[in-house]
Amino acid sequence: MTLPVVLVSHQPPDPIRDAFRGVLAGAADVVFLPELSDASRNDVLRTARAVMTYHPIRDLGVNALRKLENCGLMQCLTAGIDYLPFGDLPDHIAVAYNAGAYAEPMAEHVAAMALSASKRLAGEHRLMRQGEFNQFVPTKRIAGMTCGILGYGETGREVARIMRALGMNIQAINRSGKTDEPVDFIGTLDDVDHVLAASDVVVITLALTSATERLLEAAQLKEMKPDAILINVARGEIVDEDDLYAHLIAHPDFTACLEAWWVEPIRHGRFETAHPFLDLPNVIASPHNSAMTDGALITAAERGAENVLRFLNGETPRFIAGDDVRMA
Amino acid sequence: MTLPVVLVSHQPPDPIRDAFRGVLAGAADVVFLPELSDASRNDVLRTARAVMTYHPIRDLGVNALRKLENCGLMQCLTAGIDYLPFGDLPDHIAVAYNAGAYAEPMAEHVAAMALSASKRLAGEHRLMRQGEFNQFVPTKRIAGMTCGILGYGETGREVARIMRALGMNIQAINRSGKTDEPVDFIGTLDDVDHVLAASDVVVITLALTSATERLLEAAQLKEMKPDAILINVARGEIVDEDDLYAHLIAHPDFTACLEAWWVEPIRHGRFETAHPFLDLPNVIASPHNSAMTDGALITAAERGAENVLRFLNGETPRFIAGDDVRMA
Repeated sequence: MTLPVVLVSHQPPDPIRDAFRGVLAGAADVVFLPELSDASRNDVLRTARAVMTYHPIRDLGVNALRKLENCGLMQCLTAGIDYLPFGDLPDHIAVAYNAGAYAEPMAEHVAAMALSASKRLAGEHRLMRQGEFNQFVPTKRIAGMTCGILGYGETGREVARIMRALGMNIQAINRSGKTDEPVDFIGTLDDVDHVLAASDVVVITLALTSATERLLEAAQLKEMKPDAILINVARGEIVDEDDLYAHLIAHPDFTACLEAWWVEPIRHGRFETAHPFLDLPNVIASPHNSAMTDGALITAAERGAENVLRFLNGETPRFIAGDDVRMA
Repeated sequence: MTLPVVLVSHQPPDPIRDAFRGVLAGAADVVFLPELSDASRNDVLRTARAVMTYHPIRDLGVNALRKLENCGLMQCLTAGIDYLPFGDLPDHIAVAYNAGAYAEPMAEHVAAMALSASKRLAGEHRLMRQGEFNQFVPTKRIAGMTCGILGYGETGREVARIMRALGMNIQAINRSGKTDEPVDFIGTLDDVDHVLAASDVVVITLALTSATERLLEAAQLKEMKPDAILINVARGEIVDEDDLYAHLIAHPDFTACLEAWWVEPIRHGRFETAHPFLDLPNVIASPHNSAMTDGALITAAERGAENVLRFLNGETPRFIAGDDVRMA
């Protein structure tokens, strides 16, 4: 029996190659596009049932995309797919995003930022270097505080699991406004102001869509507690850059923890901010590296391959990108 | 019926005064030394059954201590009592320390330091300011790592509770070498090398005694993993200052998180280090302020008063300072 072909658009390192082949063993013939001869390339593109890719346009190109006649699923390996130009993709191929691909390491990164801000680690280290030893400066107790999670999907729920373990109460926003999990409040985007006002820590784990772009502008930031901690591990564009900077200047007790940026190398080829966020004492910055833990890329690859396996087995794949998560 | 007198050696703020009186209501007459008239002072000293104090020598003075004829318990309100000159205290008074007084906020501070180091928060922020955006720099996953806890008392067990919730395995050291808690290893000071070698994160929550002073010198640091994280929230003197500095220079992937220092304001009147620890990229420093969360001083006062209540009720008070916890 000939196995269906699953085409990988790039040449991953061995552990990820092994992850793909491990999950799809016996169910598919996993083929890597850069390794194909010119002669076999067109045949493989025509017969492939599914594609796994980080970036279909960049890695396959528009010409190759047109040849995917038998392909039913484009499995993206990234959690966010806001960068995808859906108009350039063939209509007959369903696109799936890799929801929660990096949920566990991202949730730990969120906890690190929330705790670091609560305990004033960066700020007091700096003051100690200047000769101040503020033994009586108050720090915040995490237990008992409220964590608002904007985007209660795979990653948001893993954030909640850790924050709950630290003793926090959870208020959350998702598409349905429903959850089976033990939250203190669950709502939809209509309830953002309520969650912002109630939360000591606000974590953004939303997908960037036309509905979430600039979700937090001056008016929403004003709803937040003056000493709140805002953590963005999703996409810079969900928060208005100018408004956030102005808010940080006006509210020195407010902390922004920025892992996701407005202009960053992987999406824009460079790192750039419209304001000197990195010079503010109430900013904690990280270079969008929360997913870079040992094994995280392998876990992400396995999750993607498992969704392809669902598709090949005739099940409905998870996380198909409907109009509501499409940015372009 | 006349209630026994409990003497407080200082004049605390109202919430702490209320905490003392709340716990001891109906069981003792709580009196504050600075509020006594000269006439009543000697009488109160003679009749007091117990004293609550931050520092008996400084707050009472040697002359007043000699007058405590009927006092059976000196309840210190600090968790560590290494600063106490036991030779100057009357022999007939048992001294209790306030074990775990700040366990919960200290454990959160430890988690903040362990996560901040694992996720390279301080280091990558600094590099971003220098123009580096290291999106692919590896960070560590906390879950699955091993946390070694040197001093598995009240504070150490609270540290373990949080670290376990973050998915860490626990190896620990205490006086008895026994525990009912779910640890992967429990031993005594004889097993320090084993715990150091096995741990990714090592937390010091020991009391400073002649047995723990300089417990970690060059030889012990050498047992540790080259990229381990050492967190000291107890007393600087438990780690050899020169050896730690040399180890940090020789092992750039090793991180020291220092909340407790060798020469610090509350014990020595000044902050001073023998080496420029604060300039090292692999040091996270905090000004011994982990206990300064809202309500923590009240919780500590209540714990102290509860131990005095045990004594007044004829029970054995907890955490009596035996020879093994006496430094001087």
